Amino acid sequence: KELVSKATGGETSVLSRETFRKTLSNTLERRLFYIPSFKIYGGVAGLYDYGPPGCAIKANVLAIWRQHFVLEENMLEVDCPCVTPEMVLKASGHVEKFTDLMVKDEKTGACYRADHLLKDFVKESLEKDPLMPPDKKEELKHVLAMLDEFTAEQLGAKLKKYGIKSPETKNSLSDPYPFNLMFSTSIGPTGLLQGYLRPETAQGIFVNFRDLYYYNGSKLPFAAAQIGQAFRNEIAPRQGLLRVREFTLAEIEHFVNPDDKSHPKFSTVANLEFYLYPREEQMTLKQPVKTQIGHAVAKGIVNNETLGYFIARTYLFLARLGIDKERLRFRQHLQNEMAHYAADCWDAEIECSYGWIECVGLADRSAYDLKAHTDMSKTDLVAHETFSEPKDVAQLLVVPNKKELGMFFKKSAKMVQEALEVMEEVEALKMKAELESEGMASLHLCTTGQRVTITREMVSISKEIETLHGRTFTPSVIEPSFGVGRIIYCLFEHCFYTRSSNAGDDQLNVFRFPASVAPIKCTVFPLVQNVKLEVTAKEISSALTREGVANKIDITGTSIGKRYARTDEIGVPFAITVDFDEKTVTVRERDTKAQIRVPVEEVAKVVNDVADARRTWIEVQSHYPGVMSKDSNQ
Amino acid sequence: KELVSKATGGETSVLSRETFRKTLSNTLERRLFYIPSFKIYGGVAGLYDYGPPGCAIKANVLAIWRQHFVLEENMLEVDCPCVTPEMVLKASGHVEKFTDLMVKDEKTGACYRADHLLKDFVKESLEKDPLMPPDKKEELKHVLAMLDEFTAEQLGAKLKKYGIKSPETKNSLSDPYPFNLMFSTSIGPTGLLQGYLRPETAQGIFVNFRDLYYYNGSKLPFAAAQIGQAFRNEIAPRQGLLRVREFTLAEIEHFVNPDDKSHPKFSTVANLEFYLYPREEQMTLKQPVKTQIGHAVAKGIVNNETLGYFIARTYLFLARLGIDKERLRFRQHLQNEMAHYAADCWDAEIECSYGWIECVGLADRSAYDLKAHTDMSKTDLVAHETFSEPKDVAQLLVVPNKKELGMFFKKSAKMVQEALEVMEEVEALKMKAELESEGMASLHLCTTGQRVTITREMVSISKEIETLHGRTFTPSVIEPSFGVGRIIYCLFEHCFYTRSSNAGDDQLNVFRFPASVAPIKCTVFPLVQNVKLEVTAKEISSALTREGVANKIDITGTSIGKRYARTDEIGVPFAITVDFDEKTVTVRERDTKAQIRVPVEEVAKVVNDVADARRTWIEVQSHYPGVMSKDSNQ
Repeated sequence: KELVSKATGGETSVLSRETFRKTLSNTLERRLFYIPSFKIYGGVAGLYDYGPPGCAIKANVLAIWRQHFVLEENMLEVDCPCVTPEMVLKASGHVEKFTDLMVKDEKTGACYRADHLLKDFVKESLEKDPLMPPDKKEELKHVLAMLDEFTAEQLGAKLKKYGIKSPETKNSLSDPYPFNLMFSTSIGPTGLLQGYLRPETAQGIFVNFRDLYYYNGSKLPFAAAQIGQAFRNEIAPRQGLLRVREFTLAEIEHFVNPDDKSHPKFSTVANLEFYLYPREEQMTLKQPVKTQIGHAVAKGIVNNETLGYFIARTYLFLARLGIDKERLRFRQHLQNEMAHYAADCWDAEIECSYGWIECVGLADRSAYDLKAHTDMSKTDLVAHETFSEPKDVAQLLVVPNKKELGMFFKKSAKMVQEALEVMEEVEALKMKAELESEGMASLHLCTTGQRVTITREMVSISKEIETLHGRTFTPSVIEPSFGVGRIIYCLFEHCFYTRSSNAGDDQLNVFRFPASVAPIKCTVFPLVQNVKLEVTAKEISSALTREGVANKIDITGTSIGKRYARTDEIGVPFAITVDFDEKTVTVRERDTKAQIRVPVEEVAKVVNDVADARRTWIEVQSHYPGVMSKDSNQ
Repeated sequence: KELVSKATGGETSVLSRETFRKTLSNTLERRLFYIPSFKIYGGVAGLYDYGPPGCAIKANVLAIWRQHFVLEENMLEVDCPCVTPEMVLKASGHVEKFTDLMVKDEKTGACYRADHLLKDFVKESLEKDPLMPPDKKEELKHVLAMLDEFTAEQLGAKLKKYGIKSPETKNSLSDPYPFNLMFSTSIGPTGLLQGYLRPETAQGIFVNFRDLYYYNGSKLPFAAAQIGQAFRNEIAPRQGLLRVREFTLAEIEHFVNPDDKSHPKFSTVANLEFYLYPREEQMTLKQPVKTQIGHAVAKGIVNNETLGYFIARTYLFLARLGIDKERLRFRQHLQNEMAHYAADCWDAEIECSYGWIECVGLADRSAYDLKAHTDMSKTDLVAHETFSEPKDVAQLLVVPNKKELGMFFKKSAKMVQEALEVMEEVEALKMKAELESEGMASLHLCTTGQRVTITREMVSISKEIETLHGRTFTPSVIEPSFGVGRIIYCLFEHCFYTRSSNAGDDQLNVFRFPASVAPIKCTVFPLVQNVKLEVTAKEISSALTREGVANKIDITGTSIGKRYARTDEIGVPFAITVDFDEKTVTVRERDTKAQIRVPVEEVAKVVNDVADARRTWIEVQSHYPGVMSKDSNQ
C-alpha cells in the first residue's frame, strides 16, 4: 500500500531519478521549503531563501548540531563577521588560490567553467557514439579522470583540440584563466581597505587561537566551533540547492598536540560500524564496506583517534537527523585530492539523485593554518607543553674560533664562520671525526662554491646534554566542516516518499522527518467547523505553545483526510483531532497513520514528550486506547 | 556589603560613567564576551567577534526571541541571503538614500562624518567657554538641535563658518557629500550584476509577500520574521559595540488590512504599564511616565492596537532578558524623524553609559514597501478582501460620444476625449450640472492649455450603482526591528555589578544574567583535587549535559572562593560543589550566594528545573537544607 520511492537508489534508471527529483522539488517549492531569492525580480542564480518550513528545519538542525557538538563536547563557540580584510585571506591562501578556471564567450562575454564545458563535451561524445574506436574512448575516459588535475594551459589545449565552442552561441572561447571565487568589497569609505566575504568560517577561529587557548586555561586539546554564512561567487551555479553562492557552514577546529592525537572518548565510539571507503578501495575499484571505526584507526586506515572520533560523531549526528545510513559513506581523499600539508582527509558523502554529494569534510590539516597566520601577522600562535618529567636532550655544539679563522682566512673569515655554524648535524659529526683522526677536514662554502680546509684549532665540536622542562610548538588542527544546506537537501531526499490516498486515486507526498527536525511538531484540527470544537482546539494549541511545541491549528472546513495530507506533505509527525467526545481527542502518527485517544488535559504533555524523544510513540501507543475509525487510513 | 554599581544612572557624573564602562569593557574583553575581529592583524574598526560566553548569550537571546515571537505568535520565519541585487535596493530607496554626509581631509584623504565634526566642535566650544555671550550660546545650541536636519550645503556652510578642520592634521576639509553606507559587491563573474550586502533583512520578506500570503491561506493579518546579518559600511564607527559595520537583526513584518489594525490578543497586554515618551511630552520637555498601553491606544497616543500590541510584547521580551525596566522607555518619533509614509513610529530605547540607545524600532510603515516593490517588479503585492456582505458603491460614468467629438474637433478629437475621461469626480459633476442647466460647458485641455466648449451631445455623465463583493488592496505593514547586538550590549551593562570579596581586599565582578540568558547554567567543582571527588563531579557534569544544561567542570586546585568568583564573572547562575559527603552536594546561587545541599542523584534535575524556570530558586531553597559554611559568603 505504501509506495516508498526508491528512485534515488543506485540501481534505478536516470529517468526515475529525474521523476523523483521533479516530484520532490515541486513539493519543496510549492510548500515554500525554499524559494528562489528575489523571485519577483527574476531571481539570481545560486541564491535561495528558506521559506517557513525550510527555515524551521534549518533552525532545528543547527540546534541539534549545537547540542551534539558544542554542548556535549564542551567546545568554545565563536561568532565572527562575514566581511574579512584581505590580509587574513592572503595568509590563508584564498586570495591566491581560491579560483576556478573560466572561459569567456569572445563575442557575448558570457562566462563558463572551463572544466564543465570539457566534461559536458566528453560525456556527450561517449554517450552519442558507443561505437567509437577503443583508443579514442580510452583517451576521453582519461580526460574525465584527470579533469580536476589539468592546469589552465592543459585545459585550454583540450578545449582547442576538441573544438569546443560557447554552448549557447557557438562563438569562440577565450583561453582559460583563473577567476577568484570570493565576493570582493571595500571596507570603510576610503576605498583603500580591500575586503572579501569569507569563503569559510574557519579563518575567524584561527586568528583567535591565542585568546581561545588562554581562555581554555592554556591547555590542549580543545575545540572551537562556529556557525555562520559563507560565500562563493560561483561562475555558473548548477545543481539547485547543492551549489549555491551563499550558504551556512558549521565548522569545528579541534587543536591538538601533533605528538598525541589520541582522544579520551574514542572508546565510546570504537565499536560503531558504518561505510568507510578508504583510498586503496577506491584505487582498486572496490565498493565501500561497513567497518568498525576502532578497527580502521587500529589498522592505520584512519590516521588517528581524534580524526576517527569526529568521523564517528559525524555519523551519529547525520543518523540522528534522519539521513539513511545505507546511503551515507565516509570517503578518504586520494593523495592528489589532498592539500600537501594535510595528514588525512575524509568526506562524509550522502547519496541523492545527483549522485554522491560531499556534505561534511573531515581533515587533519596539521599545523598549516596556524603557521600561515603566525608568519603573516608576526603573532605566535603556539602552545606550550610542560613535560611530565624533564627530558635530557643531546645537543651538538659547534663553536668556531674567531681569532684563528681571522688569522688564516682574513676577509673571508666571517663567511667560513657562518658556514661552520649552519652545518647539519651529520655534516658536523663527520667533520668532528675527521678533525680527530686526521687533524683537518674539508668544508664547502655554498655562498662561493669554494672548498676550504679547516684545522683542529679553528673549531670545537662537542656534544652537550641539555635538560628541557617543556617545549613550545604549533598545534595540529583537525577540522570537521559541515555544509548545512547540502545536508538539509539530502535530508529532504531521504525523508521524502509518496503513498496512494485512501481512495487510491491520488499519490500523496510525505516527509518522514524525525520529530526533532520536523518544522512543526503537531497540528490541531477541529473535526468539523464548530465553535465548541474550535474553542477546545485553541486551548490545546495554547497548551502546546506553552510547552514550547511548534504547532499549527487548522480550522478550515476541509475534509480531515485532506488536512492530514496537507500536514504529511510538510512532515508534521503528529496531528490532534478534536471531535464531539468532550473528554478525549485523537492523536495520529504520520508514518503509521495509527491513532490513539488521549484525555484532553494530557495531550499537550504527551505530544511534547514524544516530540522531544522523552517517550517513544510505541510506548505511548501501548498506554492509550487505539482507534479504528473511518479516518484511520487516511 | 554589595556594591551594586549605579554608574550608568542619569544622576551620576561623566567620570563615574567612564569608570563603570572601563571596568565593564575590561571584563568583557578579558573573559572573551567579545573580541575585536582580526585582532592579530590590528583589527578593523566596527567589526567584533563574539567569544564563547558572548556567543552563547547571543544564541540564548535568539532562542528566546524565536519562542517569544515566532512560536507564540505563529509567525512565518524566512531566511534570505545577505548578497542582494541592486534592483531590490533601488526599489526600497537604499541605493539613492541610505547615505551619510562625509568630508575628506584634502591632503591625507581621511574620511569623517560631517555632522560628527560639527557636533564635536559645538560641544567642545560650549564646554570650554561657559562665559560665552548668550546669543552665541543660543546659536550653538540651535545647531546641535538641528544637526540631523541639515542638508549637505547647510552642513558645509556651518563647517566653513566655524573654521572646522581635519581633526588629526588640521588640514582643510572637502565640502560634505553623500556616501552610501552599503557594502558594494559584484555578483557572478561578468562584473555586470551590481550587488550589495543587505542593510536590513526586511526587503527579503517584502519581495516574498505574494508567496507568504498564499502560504497563509490568502488571509490577513499575518507576520513574517527573519533573523540574520545586516551590514552598514559606517564612515567612522564609534561607541564600541553599539555602532558596528556588521550586526544581527531580528525583524518582523506584520501585514494587516489598513482599514482594520485591531489585534485579537490586544486585551492580553492592555493593562501592562511601562515608560512611554510620546511626541508631545518630548516637545514640551516633560519626562516619560509609566502609562498603560491600553490607555495609550485608546487615547490615540499610539496609533493602533497592532502597533500597541507589539510595543507591549517588546517590553515583555526585553524584561524577560533581564533589561532593567526602569531604564527602558518607548520614545515616539517626532514628525521630522519619521519617513513621510509612516503612520507612527516608536523606538524602544535602553539607557546605558552612552545615554539612551535605540535598540528596537517599531514602525507602522503603511503600504510603502509593498507598493515600491510592486512598481519596480511589476508583480502585484496585494491582498484580497471578500466583504461579509456585498457593498453598493456609487460610481461616476463618463462616456464620451466619439462620433460627435470627431465631427466637431477633427484631429483634436482624441485629445478632448481623453481629457473628458480623466476628469476628477468634482469636475465631472460640475460639468454634468452645467450641461443639464445650460446645454454646454467649458473644458480645460491640460496638454495644450486651451479651453474648448463641450455640448450635451458630446458626452454622457451618469451615476451608476455598482455592487462590490470584495476589494483588492495593498496591506499595511507594522515592523518591529530588533538590533540584537545593541540589546546584548545594554544587557551587559544592566546585569553587571561589583561586590567586595569576602576578605574585603578585592572588587569582584558579577553578571546577574537570568538563567535562560546565562552562557553556562552551572559549574561543577570538586572541593579539592581528589580522584574520588573528580569522578563524582564528572558524573554530575555528564548528567547535566544529558539534560541539555550547558555546564563546565573546573578541576583545577584553585581555592573554591576564587573558582566561584571566576564563574560569577561570566554570570553562571549555579555552582555545584562536590565534597567528601557521598550522598549530597552543595548548590550555590550566584547573586544571593545562598547554598543548599541536594542529593547527588537529584542535583542535575533540580538545576535543570531552576535553569529552565520550571521551578524558582526560592521554591527549591525551601525544599532542601541550607548551608552556613565558611564558603557561603564567598
